[in-house]
Amino acid sequence: MPRFASLADLRAACLDLPRGDADAAAAVAARDVTLTKPPGSLGRLEEIVRWLARWQGRSPPRLDRVEALVFAGNHGVSAQGVSAYPAAVTVQMVANFSAGGAAINQLARIAGATLRVLPLALEAPTADFTAAPALADGEFLEAVTTGYEAVSPEIDLVLLGEMGIGNTTAASAIAAALFGGGGRWVGRGTGVDQQGLVRKRAVIDVALARHRAVLDDPLAVAAALGGRELAAIFGATLAARRQHVPVLLDGFVSTAAAAPLAKLCPGALDHALAGHVSAEHAHRMLLDELDLAPVLDLGMRLGEASGAAVAVAVLRAALACHTGMATFAQAGVANKE
Amino acid sequence: MPRFASLADLRAACLDLPRGDADAAAAVAARDVTLTKPPGSLGRLEEIVRWLARWQGRSPPRLDRVEALVFAGNHGVSAQGVSAYPAAVTVQMVANFSAGGAAINQLARIAGATLRVLPLALEAPTADFTAAPALADGEFLEAVTTGYEAVSPEIDLVLLGEMGIGNTTAASAIAAALFGGGGRWVGRGTGVDQQGLVRKRAVIDVALARHRAVLDDPLAVAAALGGRELAAIFGATLAARRQHVPVLLDGFVSTAAAAPLAKLCPGALDHALAGHVSAEHAHRMLLDELDLAPVLDLGMRLGEASGAAVAVAVLRAALACHTGMATFAQAGVANKE
Repeated sequence: MPRFASLADLRAACLDLPRGDADAAAAVAARDVTLTKPPGSLGRLEEIVRWLARWQGRSPPRLDRVEALVFAGNHGVSAQGVSAYPAAVTVQMVANFSAGGAAINQLARIAGATLRVLPLALEAPTADFTAAPALADGEFLEAVTTGYEAVSPEIDLVLLGEMGIGNTTAASAIAAALFGGGGRWVGRGTGVDQQGLVRKRAVIDVALARHRAVLDDPLAVAAALGGRELAAIFGATLAARRQHVPVLLDGFVSTAAAAPLAKLCPGALDHALAGHVSAEHAHRMLLDELDLAPVLDLGMRLGEASGAAVAVAVLRAALACHTGMATFAQAGVANKE
Repeated sequence: MPRFASLADLRAACLDLPRGDADAAAAVAARDVTLTKPPGSLGRLEEIVRWLARWQGRSPPRLDRVEALVFAGNHGVSAQGVSAYPAAVTVQMVANFSAGGAAINQLARIAGATLRVLPLALEAPTADFTAAPALADGEFLEAVTTGYEAVSPEIDLVLLGEMGIGNTTAASAIAAALFGGGGRWVGRGTGVDQQGLVRKRAVIDVALARHRAVLDDPLAVAAALGGRELAAIFGATLAARRQHVPVLLDGFVSTAAAAPLAKLCPGALDHALAGHVSAEHAHRMLLDELDLAPVLDLGMRLGEASGAAVAVAVLRAALACHTGMATFAQAGVANKE
């Protein structure tokens, strides 16, 4: 039986979230102004250390154990020609992850992160959501549970990424359902051509019309329009909050997967940072809706937690300054006149 | 005797620059499209590897030896109250660098970069450039030479940073002289108050009027309005180009120090990337003038090569993907339909 026996159980958990630790954040801020630099001169790096402290609940925070979770799923809607790649690529890329040949393998190593890849019933794609809900409630809860249980309370930071041919269409559908605007959420994904783009927009329109009765319920939206890897990211984001593990979201799909949580419960993504903003224009739109400021803007659009993995280095830099720098008093440096 | 016996010698060197290696860049691009990701999906990371190859003159490029050079200098103009900190802080911070307590010490370690700090006649500040040229020609050439000779042709990437109380005023003066606009180049630097900002603007106006006869000569501008650490960065940027070492510039001061080279010789900074864009608004203006797109935008404004050091991680991520990823053929992944 999954951790969440019903949507009602899951909804209750989403509405019962711990707050951040203001004392830990304040302790970081208090040390920060003693360090040998003009106050605020490390900009975002200073904010990041306060954020880590707040959501880990300790000062100084740690980045000893960083884990990237990459969830993979297959999508019935991919049969509608919404991707530049065949659906078989999902399972092939999972093999590539196992063999160490994908971008995320290199980036996780550079980031000092362990990588776990969790394929979710790849042999059983979701239903085509233009015709039916992508996932039945039970399937949805099972995938949410897989994501939830993948997050260990022992880790210091979790990166949430995905792989799934067709899943930018699911992400666009979720974003359109939650925030309105239909086809404006559609982009080229892995590089679909102009005709594919037209098909993606049409798919969104049909899906929103078909599922219009449930569009005001974020959990129903996640089940009807998402996919298993998106549901798992939803569950992992929830688990991380409840277990005091800060989250680095990745690109458009990763962010769209977590978005229903913010819609259910304002502030529910305060423990999450956007590692980067994707070249997929809908990602910036979605980050704006969620009031998330990306750490990096490098024109990446790969998924796999790749952007989040690059951003880990910025977090490590921030923490190294905070813990390693001398104070004005220690260094004998004169402070402001 | 300095490497450059006269401004004419230096000018000749600035106009005799090697081009990049188009074959090396093309070899990177040719491998790139075979890797298991949609073409272009690593965005800026892909561009960075081509850029490294072009300016190192080899494919694949390397990042085995990365060095941060931090030049320090003192400024006569600081007596005019243009900084939030006393001039004594320059030498105190050099001691802090030696003791390992500054931000750049932590960031260089994280970046896998060696750090060398080169104090330049700190006991002899430049002349106050509202009254005289900051540096006489001989002093300028000596500092340029120090920077030039600090760049080893054996390294794979050099980061160019600085420390010098008062030096954002010098940087603003250089930018205003090269690109026009006077006081619009002035910002708060280390955090000067409103009155200090007014003084900085007034200083720029007086300096530009006093040196108006030489403002059309970028080298004379660098000598009259700059400082020793800025001259050294100029020399290091030139040396790096001539020795096939790509450069990561840091913030506003570092970029302003290199800017006269671009003004002398179009394309002369093609071997340089802006590691980040500073919170000092003039930096973005200057990057726009120089057509440099920053790698990071983290609201940093510390100098010391700190922003460039954080950016090294992005370069390492880019190179790791390029060298470590499997090809579609190796991984048995289907390419685009």
